[in-house]
Amino acid sequence: MPSRANLDHLRVVLVATRNPLNLGAAARAMSNFGSLHLRVVNPFELAFRQARSAVGPASEILARAVEFSSFGDAIADCGLVVGTTAIQHRELRHTLHHLVEGAALIRRALPTTPAALVFGSEKTGLSNDDLSRCHWLMHVPTCDEHLSMNLGQAVAVVLYEIVRERELPRSAEAAVPATSADLERLTTVLLEALQFSGYTSPATLAATEEKARRMFHRMNLTARDGEGLLGMLRQILWKLRQS
Amino acid sequence: MPSRANLDHLRVVLVATRNPLNLGAAARAMSNFGSLHLRVVNPFELAFRQARSAVGPASEILARAVEFSSFGDAIADCGLVVGTTAIQHRELRHTLHHLVEGAALIRRALPTTPAALVFGSEKTGLSNDDLSRCHWLMHVPTCDEHLSMNLGQAVAVVLYEIVRERELPRSAEAAVPATSADLERLTTVLLEALQFSGYTSPATLAATEEKARRMFHRMNLTARDGEGLLGMLRQILWKLRQS
Repeated sequence: MPSRANLDHLRVVLVATRNPLNLGAAARAMSNFGSLHLRVVNPFELAFRQARSAVGPASEILARAVEFSSFGDAIADCGLVVGTTAIQHRELRHTLHHLVEGAALIRRALPTTPAALVFGSEKTGLSNDDLSRCHWLMHVPTCDEHLSMNLGQAVAVVLYEIVRERELPRSAEAAVPATSADLERLTTVLLEALQFSGYTSPATLAATEEKARRMFHRMNLTARDGEGLLGMLRQILWKLRQS
Repeated sequence: MPSRANLDHLRVVLVATRNPLNLGAAARAMSNFGSLHLRVVNPFELAFRQARSAVGPASEILARAVEFSSFGDAIADCGLVVGTTAIQHRELRHTLHHLVEGAALIRRALPTTPAALVFGSEKTGLSNDDLSRCHWLMHVPTCDEHLSMNLGQAVAVVLYEIVRERELPRSAEAAVPATSADLERLTTVLLEALQFSGYTSPATLAATEEKARRMFHRMNLTARDGEGLLGMLRQILWKLRQS
């Protein structure tokens, strides 16, 4: 049976969920597999209220669920942010891992950092802005004709895969990864330096910001390297401002 | 992606299902994982009618579902009958396999015989008479405190485990990594920018260079990100030089 300790760092993040049954089903799957920390971002208000008022095996998880009004806030403390997608060959500028690989990477990260497992809305999935805040994406291998899974079932399958090989040996010297908040700070400082140096104009600012954010997420920065790089960029920015 | 052929011999058998949403969810999971043959034994009539009338990704499977009035008839043609249970230490006179083991045994049987994967009613599970017709039982490893899975989610997890190894994990589109020469160029440009901005002095230059070089090597940069970052740093350096 899954022991809770291993999943203490796991946060299941549901973004803009519309259906109270899906919220309840996701929470039930979490209770089955010992994942207790649910975060919801802008759920449909009524759906969240209804799901919370339902009595059942998942009521404790729903009662303790934390609500956020922005995705960035919901993942700020996480050193690994994994988006889930049914789509395989979208114009993805992200690394896409098969669930089996991805679950192994998540297990490896969990001892050192809070990790977010992110599920988008039933209708639209995750937005491009949400995606740009993910380190990589994970795909449950479904049939070409019927790619899209029900939300509660997707949560169940992904959590099952994460806990199924719990006795995996852990790699010893896993470095603490930079958190999403660290990466945001890097993005902000680099962007300002790029503005000062004329690399980006007001017209291209948003695209450059997204580009920088995605790049930092792909880098697998450790907390220490993130801090070191931030110090360098801040000094460069300070000099640019003086001129 | 799961190919259908491998599961042509698999029959998902739902016994005395009460909730139309669960029937629909089970069928949807089947469509996701390419298992097309649904058999229902004494479903609650209204539930079955409602589930069949719903439009959705699973409607084809539900439309072609075969209804039986006895469990014995539903499995008559099957050379392997596997019951699923949330319970681990019931007075079972059956062999009980963990899902991972059980799925492997089912995969091994499928080429030679129709095999039934049996799910009991939401309230009462499988009766003793039903159990006596199973070759063995299979258990999804859930938490002690929350053993019982939602029916649709249990179907999804079990089918996922059966198909999961069909497809070798496709490694994420292997990105071309930055070469050592790329990393050297990055190190050189960053170092010069750090000199211009006063981050490093002649006394600390060698240490800073090593620090920057190590950092870039730890980043697992792709060739494309390396190039992008180099462009940004060059522009920043150009501006610093001007001042």
